[in-house]
Amino acid sequence: MLRLSILGGTGPEGRGIAMRLAMAGHAVCIGSRDESKALDIAIDISNSIGVHIIGLDNANAAKEGEVIFVTVPYDAQCAVLQSVEKDLAGKIIVNVVAPMEFTKGIGASAIDVAIGSAAEESQSLCPDSYVVSALQNVSAENLEDPDKILDEDVIVCSDHKDSKEIVMGLIRNIDTLRPVDGGALSNSKYVEQLTPLLVNINRIYKMHSGIKITGIEN
Amino acid sequence: MLRLSILGGTGPEGRGIAMRLAMAGHAVCIGSRDESKALDIAIDISNSIGVHIIGLDNANAAKEGEVIFVTVPYDAQCAVLQSVEKDLAGKIIVNVVAPMEFTKGIGASAIDVAIGSAAEESQSLCPDSYVVSALQNVSAENLEDPDKILDEDVIVCSDHKDSKEIVMGLIRNIDTLRPVDGGALSNSKYVEQLTPLLVNINRIYKMHSGIKITGIEN
Repeated sequence: MLRLSILGGTGPEGRGIAMRLAMAGHAVCIGSRDESKALDIAIDISNSIGVHIIGLDNANAAKEGEVIFVTVPYDAQCAVLQSVEKDLAGKIIVNVVAPMEFTKGIGASAIDVAIGSAAEESQSLCPDSYVVSALQNVSAENLEDPDKILDEDVIVCSDHKDSKEIVMGLIRNIDTLRPVDGGALSNSKYVEQLTPLLVNINRIYKMHSGIKITGIEN
Repeated sequence: MLRLSILGGTGPEGRGIAMRLAMAGHAVCIGSRDESKALDIAIDISNSIGVHIIGLDNANAAKEGEVIFVTVPYDAQCAVLQSVEKDLAGKIIVNVVAPMEFTKGIGASAIDVAIGSAAEESQSLCPDSYVVSALQNVSAENLEDPDKILDEDVIVCSDHKDSKEIVMGLIRNIDTLRPVDGGALSNSKYVEQLTPLLVNINRIYKMHSGIKITGIEN
């Protein structure tokens, strides 16, 4: 059991990850700019799955967690990380952020990130942390439905081998998700950009899609 | 049965696609800058699968085909298309190109394309053709092994609905490949960039990976 905090955990992706990790037996804390909102969501999830989750503001959630998930929208990532950077030193940051925007008539498209990816930006903002990129491609709707079987893969990228192993272990704890080693953090760009593609495919097929990597055994 | 030409068809991806489409009953022509090389490869494939394939230079291959696959390296795409543009007018171009480069110690990485993707660049070079993006993520090694079962998906993007349908039908003709409607041609960028990610995953797992889209039915 690890103490896991989810910064920006009141959004759909954050709620889903919090729920699934709590169901897997971890001590989960939801963080938000608004502590009372974090508490409300924590109570909702606790009631729905019968496992206790706590809610704090992002600053205290950053202190509380041993591993920190970042599930804020991309445009909030920089400010949130700068505000809690000191409390993340020496810890693993799991970057779930997929920079994207929506245009009427076009759909979802990736936002270009100067440094390459949201995950590399987090690593540069928090040089004393171990950034691991994961979970951007798993549908929030599927995560939030505790009865939904998650028969898909999570590509995990990092420049820190031991931290990547720990996060791959956390992914394995979630239902039937399979972690796939995606190599260096610079590969996170390709994984993050898959999210707008999947969002556009969801619109075509009216389903919640995910991905699997075929041909590998692990 | 359609007459299909594969420009740059002497490379591994082109050879694999030529072989699979010929096995599916189409009339396949391999095109190359070097006609004698095209002929040699066509004879090799014909002998290995017992189905006749022809070989021509790219210019004549472009004339011969009703649907034209482009499997040249990205740095040759512009010159090849400009040289045959008139013969591609009114035809479907299936763009298989994934712009990438290799750096020692880093592996594969995507080359940025100013217009967004190699497929959009083809459409802008050949405005009178119908560009459909497909097949970039299917391993050449797997395609070239006629006994290998291709249990994976092909994401197909285009701004031309009827042409997209025809190409999805051609994909369905190949073994157990499943076409997935990937929406507009602007989504090709995300599909093309998956290729360097898969190449890097191949290196980690020592396998030939591909992808599947989960959660959709078609």
